Amino acid sequence: MPESPIRKLVPYAEKAKRNGKKVYHLNIGQPDIQTPDIALKAIRNFDHKVIEYSHSAGNESYRKKLVEYYKKIGIHIDHTNILITTGGSEAITFAFIACLNPGDEVIIPEPLYANYIGFAVSAGIIIKPITAHIENGFALPHISEFEKLITPKTKGIGICNPNNPTGYLYSHDEIMKLREIVKRHDLYLFSDEVYREFCYDGNSHFSVMQLEGIDNNAIMIDSVSKRYSECGVRIGALITKNKDVLKTALKFAQARLSPPSLGQVVGEASLDTPLSYFEGVNKEYTERRNYMVDVLNKMEGVFCPRPKGAFYGIARLPIDDADKFAQWLLEEFSYDNQTVMVAPATGFYSTPGLGKNEVRIAYVLKIEDLKNAMECLEKALKVYPGRTI
Amino acid sequence: MPESPIRKLVPYAEKAKRNGKKVYHLNIGQPDIQTPDIALKAIRNFDHKVIEYSHSAGNESYRKKLVEYYKKIGIHIDHTNILITTGGSEAITFAFIACLNPGDEVIIPEPLYANYIGFAVSAGIIIKPITAHIENGFALPHISEFEKLITPKTKGIGICNPNNPTGYLYSHDEIMKLREIVKRHDLYLFSDEVYREFCYDGNSHFSVMQLEGIDNNAIMIDSVSKRYSECGVRIGALITKNKDVLKTALKFAQARLSPPSLGQVVGEASLDTPLSYFEGVNKEYTERRNYMVDVLNKMEGVFCPRPKGAFYGIARLPIDDADKFAQWLLEEFSYDNQTVMVAPATGFYSTPGLGKNEVRIAYVLKIEDLKNAMECLEKALKVYPGRTI
Repeated sequence: MPESPIRKLVPYAEKAKRNGKKVYHLNIGQPDIQTPDIALKAIRNFDHKVIEYSHSAGNESYRKKLVEYYKKIGIHIDHTNILITTGGSEAITFAFIACLNPGDEVIIPEPLYANYIGFAVSAGIIIKPITAHIENGFALPHISEFEKLITPKTKGIGICNPNNPTGYLYSHDEIMKLREIVKRHDLYLFSDEVYREFCYDGNSHFSVMQLEGIDNNAIMIDSVSKRYSECGVRIGALITKNKDVLKTALKFAQARLSPPSLGQVVGEASLDTPLSYFEGVNKEYTERRNYMVDVLNKMEGVFCPRPKGAFYGIARLPIDDADKFAQWLLEEFSYDNQTVMVAPATGFYSTPGLGKNEVRIAYVLKIEDLKNAMECLEKALKVYPGRTI
Repeated sequence: MPESPIRKLVPYAEKAKRNGKKVYHLNIGQPDIQTPDIALKAIRNFDHKVIEYSHSAGNESYRKKLVEYYKKIGIHIDHTNILITTGGSEAITFAFIACLNPGDEVIIPEPLYANYIGFAVSAGIIIKPITAHIENGFALPHISEFEKLITPKTKGIGICNPNNPTGYLYSHDEIMKLREIVKRHDLYLFSDEVYREFCYDGNSHFSVMQLEGIDNNAIMIDSVSKRYSECGVRIGALITKNKDVLKTALKFAQARLSPPSLGQVVGEASLDTPLSYFEGVNKEYTERRNYMVDVLNKMEGVFCPRPKGAFYGIARLPIDDADKFAQWLLEEFSYDNQTVMVAPATGFYSTPGLGKNEVRIAYVLKIEDLKNAMECLEKALKVYPGRTI
């Protein structure tokens, strides 16, 4: 398994901090948003005498309550369509091993969430990247491009919507096009929708679970990590109307016994989070995004499309090599004894050589810190020896 | 992946309960022992504002404290030898995928923990069973038997010590023999030691991590689930001095981001559990075991070796087919409107046809319930139509 470019940077970040340098982390997906009070209260009120295994598919009470949550957002399922997993990570792994055989291919638009590659390696699955482009904000590649990649080994198409790392939100029209192609070739449509609640500018999210006529194709990945800023509880879900897939996934779920019980307590309580919480979070992220994108696009030679969802954006920078640049920022650059850590986009492309002048920036810092971070980045770009224009 | 015999029984158990029958569960590994107060208190005192990801290898504070725990039991490692996992289950998976390639073989004494088979299937590993026998209490098969099974594809030997499902505790001498053979053929020695604290009659546990000269071969699997009766926290550990194995395992750990954060809070606090807790638990299990084994061996045609560890025993019964018998107990048998659920041993043998007249019994019920359960079992054996003697 290849080492990710972000992880290679960690020792440099640690060294910079040891040397007393302030490092702004624009590289990570750990939000600074507070977990809802109702969720924290639930864990502090935990009153069982034994912390027992739960059902391998997750507590029934939790799954039944999730049905109501999904109903409110237009997804109509019952609790037997839900398998609770140890984070979205396990849901992806289960989806791959329950639907696919080693050697099968899945087409995924790149840049893509780097860990998909790791899960694919574990399952013996081959990811066939289809390149999306920064010029149109990483919109879904044309269906004819997908058609070109389909072979007898192709068993699925995967998307992350809203997208990590691009922040792109697929439109209703784009999802309908995916429906058409998976129906035509009888492919699975894997959709990672863990950033569903993070859609901006009044745009709404359209789920693959709302598509008609492809009940056996659509596989949704979900997680409470980002929605309620509780990444550490490790609670996700694999959702599908395909009973065979669920039956197979359940066997793997039974082998690992149970998803975390305490996390399920938190996840279930979180479903009662008031709407005002999400309104506040949405407002905060919109402000951060607007600030970040505006500042970036004012920098000479920089282009950053305005993301419509999640809390990431990809910026094209006037640099020779994103990996070198990111390391240089940590190792050599300093402005007022501060620097920034960014994620080189090379790690999000499966096609070698792509992303060399792009970085992913997570706007998970509060505005004051984001301001300092952007100032650092601007100064850095001016003096970086590998600047290209 | 094959369906386990226990899971096939679940619908029958559910139906029996719906029909108002009391079912004593002798089939499961969920102890009724209370989680230590200190652990429950820690979770109720959780005062973070955000439930964040932990380090992918687990919190450093937890790993450092674990080093002290291991030191006290004669295992000398440092915190960089420890990778915290999502339960022992994930530790086994990581051990397999970090050490082995698809198609590689691991020799494991059978009867064996059924889920090893599931993890092996996921990783593309082949388990080669070496049969242990009820007559000598499931002692380690002779080294010459291991030698017969070793091929160029053999990359490891695996044990569970104390053993699930047999309750057998491997002696110092047996572990030394394993050392000899893994050293001779340069094999990994995987040792699942999650029942370490459950050794009876003054016997003590000898870990593969205490073996000298095989630092790169020994891989220990651990978990807090049974030790502190907190199965639901899903916290385990992969422990080895082999840096390459840990480095590879860490990549898979990074792909799944982090083990459960709340579980680690519980696990870390549990390390301060007073010795009196373990003394109480040991006393309780010893009483249950003695009661169960004595009663079983008094039943006509029944033989159950006295387990020296864990909380399971395998009993040989005068029956034609353990799967049929277990189903019959739930579906057709009733004594005072009560019955028992047992685990057919067929699921613990990898060699087809073995275990047909054996069942695994977990003594995780309090004495009063165990008495009723044993009474049921005795009555059932008398009237079971497939009785053989």
